[in-house]
Amino acid sequence: MAASIGDRAREIIEAPNFCHVSTLRSDGSVHATLVWADIDGDRILLNSAQGRDWPANVARDPRITLTVADSENPYEFVSIRGRVVEITTEGADEHIDALAKKYLGVDTYPMRAEGEVRIKLVVEPDHVVHRGA
Amino acid sequence: MAASIGDRAREIIEAPNFCHVSTLRSDGSVHATLVWADIDGDRILLNSAQGRDWPANVARDPRITLTVADSENPYEFVSIRGRVVEITTEGADEHIDALAKKYLGVDTYPMRAEGEVRIKLVVEPDHVVHRGA
Repeated sequence: MAASIGDRAREIIEAPNFCHVSTLRSDGSVHATLVWADIDGDRILLNSAQGRDWPANVARDPRITLTVADSENPYEFVSIRGRVVEITTEGADEHIDALAKKYLGVDTYPMRAEGEVRIKLVVEPDHVVHRGA
Repeated sequence: MAASIGDRAREIIEAPNFCHVSTLRSDGSVHATLVWADIDGDRILLNSAQGRDWPANVARDPRITLTVADSENPYEFVSIRGRVVEITTEGADEHIDALAKKYLGVDTYPMRAEGEVRIKLVVEPDHVVHRGA
């Protein structure tokens, strides 16, 4: 059953705070990295490129854990455990541009690599913890 | 084989940056939280209290993944995959006081709860990634 995200947790994710993404490697150990994120309803939207490690991890095992701390007060953070329910190239270029607007204030994602295929990943939360409020 | 931590990665951990800790729950999914951290040689020292979730996870499965971003430039971060090689109450109270000094600038950890038993956790890194430098 999908969990909902409260108002203050939503604010933390809507602000340009970085999202720590943990996924499961094939040996069951944790891969962690930092990404941009935004939110659509109760779903978290992430973006990556084909061939990267962590999207390959969730293609194999959709379980994912996200933590987003308020950069102005890192004692307050949201931790979300959920599943990647969609991985798509559709709209992924527009989505990385929207994230570039959010995080960098520019209209077009400036770090696009030649031949890179962007993907958008949709996370459905199963369990949401909001601490430090 | 233990991995070593480079000079700049060490600086990021020595600064009062928060450490995102990912551990494995009994069902194999990821538990993530934020903690204080410091470094002793190539080992990362964490602190918690008996009865908390994530120390129970590493008592069962010692694999742990840490990410520490530079709060002044979160595009630069260190991700460490390793193992908890020691969990001890010995020196744990002094250690949480030292972390309170580092993160809060006070001599004594001010959030101690009645009856709480502090534990110190020692992480040996197996794999260190330093990105965004």
